[in-house]
Amino acid sequence: MSLHPLGWTPERRLAILDQTVLPLEERWIALDTVEGVVEAIAALRVRGAPAIGIAAAMGLVAATRGRATGPRAPFLELVRESAAAIGAARPTAVNLSWAMRRMRERAEAAGGDAAAVLAALEAEAQAIWDEDEAACRRIAEHGQELVASCAEAKLRRARRAGGGVGAGDVVNVLTHCNTGFLATGGVGTALGVVHHAVERGRRVHVWVDETRPLLQGSRLTAWELAKAGIPHTVIADGVAASVMAAGKVDVVLVGADRVAANGDAANKSGTYALAVAARHHGVPFYVVAPTSSFDLACPSGDAIPIEQRAAVEVTKVLGRQAAPERSPAYNPAFDVTPAALIAGWVTEKGILTPPF
Amino acid sequence: MSLHPLGWTPERRLAILDQTVLPLEERWIALDTVEGVVEAIAALRVRGAPAIGIAAAMGLVAATRGRATGPRAPFLELVRESAAAIGAARPTAVNLSWAMRRMRERAEAAGGDAAAVLAALEAEAQAIWDEDEAACRRIAEHGQELVASCAEAKLRRARRAGGGVGAGDVVNVLTHCNTGFLATGGVGTALGVVHHAVERGRRVHVWVDETRPLLQGSRLTAWELAKAGIPHTVIADGVAASVMAAGKVDVVLVGADRVAANGDAANKSGTYALAVAARHHGVPFYVVAPTSSFDLACPSGDAIPIEQRAAVEVTKVLGRQAAPERSPAYNPAFDVTPAALIAGWVTEKGILTPPF
Repeated sequence: MSLHPLGWTPERRLAILDQTVLPLEERWIALDTVEGVVEAIAALRVRGAPAIGIAAAMGLVAATRGRATGPRAPFLELVRESAAAIGAARPTAVNLSWAMRRMRERAEAAGGDAAAVLAALEAEAQAIWDEDEAACRRIAEHGQELVASCAEAKLRRARRAGGGVGAGDVVNVLTHCNTGFLATGGVGTALGVVHHAVERGRRVHVWVDETRPLLQGSRLTAWELAKAGIPHTVIADGVAASVMAAGKVDVVLVGADRVAANGDAANKSGTYALAVAARHHGVPFYVVAPTSSFDLACPSGDAIPIEQRAAVEVTKVLGRQAAPERSPAYNPAFDVTPAALIAGWVTEKGILTPPF
Repeated sequence: MSLHPLGWTPERRLAILDQTVLPLEERWIALDTVEGVVEAIAALRVRGAPAIGIAAAMGLVAATRGRATGPRAPFLELVRESAAAIGAARPTAVNLSWAMRRMRERAEAAGGDAAAVLAALEAEAQAIWDEDEAACRRIAEHGQELVASCAEAKLRRARRAGGGVGAGDVVNVLTHCNTGFLATGGVGTALGVVHHAVERGRRVHVWVDETRPLLQGSRLTAWELAKAGIPHTVIADGVAASVMAAGKVDVVLVGADRVAANGDAANKSGTYALAVAARHHGVPFYVVAPTSSFDLACPSGDAIPIEQRAAVEVTKVLGRQAAPERSPAYNPAFDVTPAALIAGWVTEKGILTPPF
């Protein structure tokens, strides 16, 4: 299955599956300038905290490759400037600045001329990708514990209620935004747990929050699940709470763009509302993210910068005017879920549980 | 201000402002058949529980007028059949069946020939409209108590915090769907409270939930508030909880399509999620509805039939494909908020408070 959204063109330009036109079109774009990479990240052609970090690293290589000749110093200066520009494309996901710092440090540590520095950068970008792919795999493995315990709890309930074996073992996962192949360098974070579970023969059904304003749920997660043949149902974001009230959600799994030192997690707007609803209904709510999304320098959610995006993303939907032209809209890209509402943090190192 | 969505054409056909094309177009349609009226209600060209009741009554008149000649019995039979068909157009709003029952009973009680029965029906439709207009006015007046207490509480807090007089007296109302002129025969229910407050010089700002899937918030409520010059901000439905967490909501006011005998209220999908979030944040949550929306024959929310609408309303937005064609969606038009989450029911008879 080819769901990976990143790659290299034969000329070693950065190839990105443009996620703004999915699911209608599977259009790849090739980038080899800083401006192009910044635009692709800012316009969400590539999105998802881990994928942004990888794309930024690969984009830095692609954008500087053409000038990787001659002595070391001027090339290093170009790398520093380019990394700073790419790193400023979006403020919330910590993976972006983390990846740019890694790349800059690797360049600074590399000996030799410009070509040698470029080779080091190329290796580092590949390492960031490989590490994320491995992290996704380990996260997905750790997450099986949650899926298994949901399935067992359902089976116990079904048996008590007199149902046959297997009657109650479809695990209903509710998720928000997109956290799968499209959002990472591997199988995904929250959705990676689902992909792994299905591969291992679990019966899983996913409630897909459409995730307004940019519809990453209905456009991307549903696309990914449809491609993978995983049963799913798209819902408007406001419907999630009543689906929980009806007892149809066993676990909420979401990603994170940044987790603060106290466990507060910034994720796509609407996540916090889900966490509040999950608490009200006694549904376990887990954040699934690699440790590269953890920012220990950030003491709490209050210190996480929240990207404010254009009002037009709310007032126009898929290019069509929804609200009157003169109506203002408030469009924070992320919200912060306090650690107190989070049952656990599923990472590549295992499931962390409170107290964080 | 001409925000009323209903009227008569010169030929006494039912005139409806087509709410499916707002805010892009202000298009009126004229109806004089049962099929036309049923289609307009089912397709939400007219919507809002009280407006549906009025449109149904007026539509019954318009659709039977052409055959209101001759003896009483066959016309009465036509009225009964037509009322049954119109009454079945949508299941949840109790105003629809209530209005059709009133019309049928009035027709049955009327003496004379077909023309006399039609005249009685015409008078009854006008009475339903007039009563709703008056109910809206009284509801809006009773609601001022809530707005005043919010303003006073804010002022007290602002003074304690050392702010000047007036600094804190903008009342922030959060609402869902549309409950104003467009939804009723008068100034509205929940939004009517806002319209009245502003007319009386209160400073009010409205957070407008866009209300997916059909965007009645961004398309209709924002249009109505923009026309009326009332400050407002459109938000994605998933953002409401974090706006509450930021302390920026003083009160949640929503309408209802049906209130059960125990106070449980069915309203546009997404309302329940707001009620849960309001409870979590200590924000008062009020249902604002005329007593014509109360169904005492319905013991609790469990007994309210919930209209399931087409998946395509979720998977396509404003005519554009959002999710993959083969992805299923779940699209209940309403959800039920249990009485325990409701601080009070604002009706034309006053504000009812728990225990209901």
